[in-house]
Amino acid sequence: MGKWLVGVDLGGTTTKFGFITENGDILYKWTIPTDVSNAGRNIIPNIADSILNKLNESNQKASILKGVGIGAPAFMDMDSGFVYEAVNLGWQNLDLKSELEHKLMVPVIIDNDANIAAIGEMWKGAGVGSKDLLCITIGTGVGGGIIINGEIVHGTNGMAGEIGHLTVVPENGLLCNCGKSGCLETVSSATGMVRLAMEGMEAYPESQLKKRNKQYGYITSKLIFEAANENDQFALEIVNTSSYYLGLAIANIANTINPSRIVIGGGVSKAGTLLLELISKYFKQFALPRVFEGADLAIAKLGNDAGIIGGAWLVNNKL
Amino acid sequence: MGKWLVGVDLGGTTTKFGFITENGDILYKWTIPTDVSNAGRNIIPNIADSILNKLNESNQKASILKGVGIGAPAFMDMDSGFVYEAVNLGWQNLDLKSELEHKLMVPVIIDNDANIAAIGEMWKGAGVGSKDLLCITIGTGVGGGIIINGEIVHGTNGMAGEIGHLTVVPENGLLCNCGKSGCLETVSSATGMVRLAMEGMEAYPESQLKKRNKQYGYITSKLIFEAANENDQFALEIVNTSSYYLGLAIANIANTINPSRIVIGGGVSKAGTLLLELISKYFKQFALPRVFEGADLAIAKLGNDAGIIGGAWLVNNKL
Repeated sequence: MGKWLVGVDLGGTTTKFGFITENGDILYKWTIPTDVSNAGRNIIPNIADSILNKLNESNQKASILKGVGIGAPAFMDMDSGFVYEAVNLGWQNLDLKSELEHKLMVPVIIDNDANIAAIGEMWKGAGVGSKDLLCITIGTGVGGGIIINGEIVHGTNGMAGEIGHLTVVPENGLLCNCGKSGCLETVSSATGMVRLAMEGMEAYPESQLKKRNKQYGYITSKLIFEAANENDQFALEIVNTSSYYLGLAIANIANTINPSRIVIGGGVSKAGTLLLELISKYFKQFALPRVFEGADLAIAKLGNDAGIIGGAWLVNNKL
Repeated sequence: MGKWLVGVDLGGTTTKFGFITENGDILYKWTIPTDVSNAGRNIIPNIADSILNKLNESNQKASILKGVGIGAPAFMDMDSGFVYEAVNLGWQNLDLKSELEHKLMVPVIIDNDANIAAIGEMWKGAGVGSKDLLCITIGTGVGGGIIINGEIVHGTNGMAGEIGHLTVVPENGLLCNCGKSGCLETVSSATGMVRLAMEGMEAYPESQLKKRNKQYGYITSKLIFEAANENDQFALEIVNTSSYYLGLAIANIANTINPSRIVIGGGVSKAGTLLLELISKYFKQFALPRVFEGADLAIAKLGNDAGIIGGAWLVNNKL
């Protein structure tokens, strides 16, 4: 019987776990809330306990584990497994790899959360068969993972794939959380789309969005897509604007790294075909023809499992 | 005594050659005009003859050669050494590697001209010590070579590094040779700068550039930089505009691949510090702080030798 790989996708709200076979099949998966209190000091003990408890439930010992692969929303040194900072977890200067290895007595490997999701899609999802892959995750923010020749691109200090902070509105762009302005995620994330809706609403008194906002007291990206699919003019304009900037950014990235596949994931990617069609239209407009022709656009397949499967891949291939 | 590496930098006007040691030192270098007549049919025989003649002159036999590494301005399959198209050479569907191997009886390896220049700078020039490198060549056009983890990035169909065709003016941009509009090279190449000068000249009747144009009947990018260095307002505006778009493009590429060094080469890079200072200013403005801090900006060191040295590196490392 083969060893088990543990994939962990550590987020600011929940932590996802999987026991996964060496072929990438999920044996068990579960989640726990992430306890970010007390500067995140409980997170590592909680991860260790949760893995050991689940092993117990499965009547297995730690010796069945080949290792643990963790993705975290953090600035880190992947080689040493040291986390410099993870704002959403409350962490600063934490030796994640060593501390968890000490508790579990199995090897641990860490990477960025967007990167392990990309690797997961490459291994078992929409990226299968592609060794040059761009993954874009559109949710609260816009994240990215880049794979070239089958390897994650980290860059010189772990910042590769920061696609949400490509500047797409160089002049008079909206202020971004990162301190710059005009970043892709100010106009193309779920948050960005809602902001476009709130700010433009008064000019479209007949829009569904204005009615929904009055009714619920808020707007979501889901509501924007629903209204767009019902042909609401204002909602269509927002989706078009967001897709325009996504298509522009994707074209510029693709002219740079020439991927064979581009996988769109995250909550917003569930909106359906309208988004993908519009992104594709603008990608074509702004990319060299050979670059556009070389790249398939696809929606991510693994959903919330991408991270744990990518974490397991790290254990299989990088430990 | 070590073997000799042959580096060949095949251009539309001249072909550069070098016999190079396994340490990257140039033993002999020379150039011949590129004969593009007759659909470029003389190019391969001319390259073979030139190498054999120089061997003769050096009293050496072909057995001293380890191999030949060629960079060409072409769409190609690097693995098979097949060229699909090289517009400036007149080539279509040509088996460059096999034909030259047949004539020389030594192994041949081919790559894109911008890529071998980047590899040359990594091995012996401004990129020494950096394994994550972005090289930008600013001349008639804007070219690029990307190195990640010490390896050239080719992309899925050899189009990686097409930095000149990043769209930096999405709306109402100038038409580019590639068929798109608003490409970086329409505003930041030598040609693009001259175009900005010719089109804006009437609004600046006092500019040096208008006088020079009247005097010589033309403008060059060198004249634009000379005038800018003499504080000519219009010339300064052109240099600022070109640098702005270069800084924006570099920032977006760097947010994507997070290089440790960015090397600016090509004729325009000889203009001096003004260009580099302005590029750096806008790079900083549009990049994430950690990305900007992680990347040194440097001017290429090898000049016209970058290609032959990079070709030799291919022979040393990839044959």
